[in-house]
Amino acid sequence: MSGSLEELRKYRERMNEKILAAGNLQIQRFFNLDTRAYEGGALSAKIKELLGLVASLVLRCDDCITYHIVRCAEEGVTDGEFFEVFNVALVVGGSITIPHLRRAFERLEECRKLPKPNTKLGKD
Amino acid sequence: MSGSLEELRKYRERMNEKILAAGNLQIQRFFNLDTRAYEGGALSAKIKELLGLVASLVLRCDDCITYHIVRCAEEGVTDGEFFEVFNVALVVGGSITIPHLRRAFERLEECRKLPKPNTKLGKD
Amino acid sequence: MSGSLEELRKYRERMNEKILAAGNLQIQRFFNLDTRAYEGGALSAKIKELLGLVASLVLRCDDCITYHIVRCAEEGVTDGEFFEVFNVALVVGGSITIPHLRRAFERLEECRKLPKPNTKLGKD
Amino acid sequence: MSGSLEELRKYRERMNEKILAAGNLQIQRFFNLDTRAYEGGALSAKIKELLGLVASLVLRCDDCITYHIVRCAEEGVTDGEFFEVFNVALVVGGSITIPHLRRAFERLEECRKLPKPNTKLGKD
Amino acid sequence: MSGSLEELRKYRERMNEKILAAGNLQIQRFFNLDTRAYEGGALSAKIKELLGLVASLVLRCDDCITYHIVRCAEEGVTDGEFFEVFNVALVVGGSITIPHLRRAFERLEECRKLPKPNTKLGKD
Amino acid sequence: MSGSLEELRKYRERMNEKILAAGNLQIQRFFNLDTRAYEGGALSAKIKELLGLVASLVLRCDDCITYHIVRCAEEGVTDGEFFEVFNVALVVGGSITIPHLRRAFERLEECRKLPKPNTKLGKD
Repeated sequence: MSGSLEELRKYRERMNEKILAAGNLQIQRFFNLDTRAYEGGALSAKIKELLGLVASLVLRCDDCITYHIVRCAEEGVTDGEFFEVFNVALVVGGSITIPHLRRAFERLEECRKLPKPNTKLGKD
Repeated sequence: MSGSLEELRKYRERMNEKILAAGNLQIQRFFNLDTRAYEGGALSAKIKELLGLVASLVLRCDDCITYHIVRCAEEGVTDGEFFEVFNVALVVGGSITIPHLRRAFERLEECRKLPKPNTKLGKD
Repeated sequence: MSGSLEELRKYRERMNEKILAAGNLQIQRFFNLDTRAYEGGALSAKIKELLGLVASLVLRCDDCITYHIVRCAEEGVTDGEFFEVFNVALVVGGSITIPHLRRAFERLEECRKLPKPNTKLGKD
Repeated sequence: MSGSLEELRKYRERMNEKILAAGNLQIQRFFNLDTRAYEGGALSAKIKELLGLVASLVLRCDDCITYHIVRCAEEGVTDGEFFEVFNVALVVGGSITIPHLRRAFERLEECRKLPKPNTKLGKD
Repeated sequence: MSGSLEELRKYRERMNEKILAAGNLQIQRFFNLDTRAYEGGALSAKIKELLGLVASLVLRCDDCITYHIVRCAEEGVTDGEFFEVFNVALVVGGSITIPHLRRAFERLEECRKLPKPNTKLGKD
Repeated sequence: MSGSLEELRKYRERMNEKILAAGNLQIQRFFNLDTRAYEGGALSAKIKELLGLVASLVLRCDDCITYHIVRCAEEGVTDGEFFEVFNVALVVGGSITIPHLRRAFERLEECRKLPKPNTKLGKD
């Protein structure tokens, strides 16, 4: 694994700030749309985070998977629920997702050990 | 669009039967795992179909999208909920998903017009 | 090929209108960002359309390829330039892009035969 | 399915000729490398066609899959062997490959019915 | 490169055990199907490992590539054969696979230096 | 980030030399086509590097992104131009490209700090 959740969170925050500070208005708007896509509406924030997690798994993006695991945990997703999402991703995306599943599992363990207030990541 | 929901359903059923009849035990088992991944458990069948839909959208597979739209409609997913799933897929997967979104929207329209008992597709 | 440029344009316009009329504000904003990404700025509209074309080719989306070929032609891209973009896409994306390249070539032929004012597509 | 094997073969040949006639030397060289990659060497032509088939399946390109099924059949690949390649692709690439698998199966049926000399496709 | 073959093997084994111990029956079955897909049948184990390798290369998964290189080496794949698989993957998947090819080559070197009994990896 | 630009450059050069020295003629030819695809012709080298960058971003290959950022900087691409390419990639490829965008931004910073003659990378 490439760094702790805390290191990853800091890197993400620092780089996002730089990208947003660079002043491209359209990129700023995209980041805003990205944040708002996961806010509760017709579907709850929890369900939307599950959607973000399964999409990240089948597209095989470790940083995105980590982000959504942390957010899912904050929304109260249980281990049993996590494993059913992992299974859907595994069936849809195939064995090529397994290395990401191993890292996802490790992130989940790391996440469960963190005191609640520390788990909050900046936006993906 | 390449055929009605009904034509697509019949093609899928006919070919799935042939594939399963060909006698490769491991393929039969995979198809079984695929069916069971969407059965209600820790997460409801409805949420799992939403997961299947968003995964199909970001992986850009029209037939898979159609299948999960029909199943989501059967599980009572509302238009507002569909659009929030479409939005998550659009943000995660980008504008490259838009042609699939157009076809998804057309399938949803077709699906809403069908009498309930006819919408049932065989397994994806 | 699945329909003429004109049929494709009409389908795209009709479905985009329906999607935008459905009233999901975030999807509307995404479509707006998509339109604006190709407007001239630090880079010209022509270069941005070339970027859109190569991205569509390596991601293998026929409708997106068609859209950007039409727009590139409107921006005055020559056959020699088109072929160099096709070559970059072929080298980066591999032989898996060749079926899309065949259809791209056919669309380019179709596009060259159209009177200028008819080639305008609605937004992708 | 979008046309018979024979129609597909003619379309491929006609468009490949046009692309090669357009005179971009690097594209011509790429097409040449593509042809030669499947010639027997340290590995037999049969094994290389199996490699081309599994790669086309997991990358989900119907035209490429069709091409390699025809070539595999010409190299004497049996139904049992085809199904084991399909199974590897299904496990590696997941259920998202299933719609392609259905069309692959249909192409294989079509291919088995053709008299041997007619099955020959031009290069992918 | 992110760790030696031995470290990678231990990480894989440790995490796979945890995932299987978590008790989701469908994930356990998927892992079982994954293992069995590469067992000799109509096609030999060697050919199936070559299929796994080319699929992993075009899908660009370093851990999967490493796993199949080790298994191919165990099945007696020669350097000349490896390079022909690499070439098929390069032509099909394009230059985007080159960074993975560099790491594949390094893993192959590492693999050739290992005493035979140490090269055995747990299942991918 | 996994190593400095200089370390990455040396690794790439060393491994490319080994791959080319291994004597597979077709791989050598592919590497040659890869180099030549970015040489100025009907389109300038600068525009072709922009094409290579956007293709690498939407296909999400960090090493390829890094390579093309360095080459774009050598061709005089400005920060404003870089950001418009990043925006096209973000819109086309979606939020799944954001982790790569963060690393791209960091590479751009690193690149801007390097004295001109040191930024030259061997071929991708």
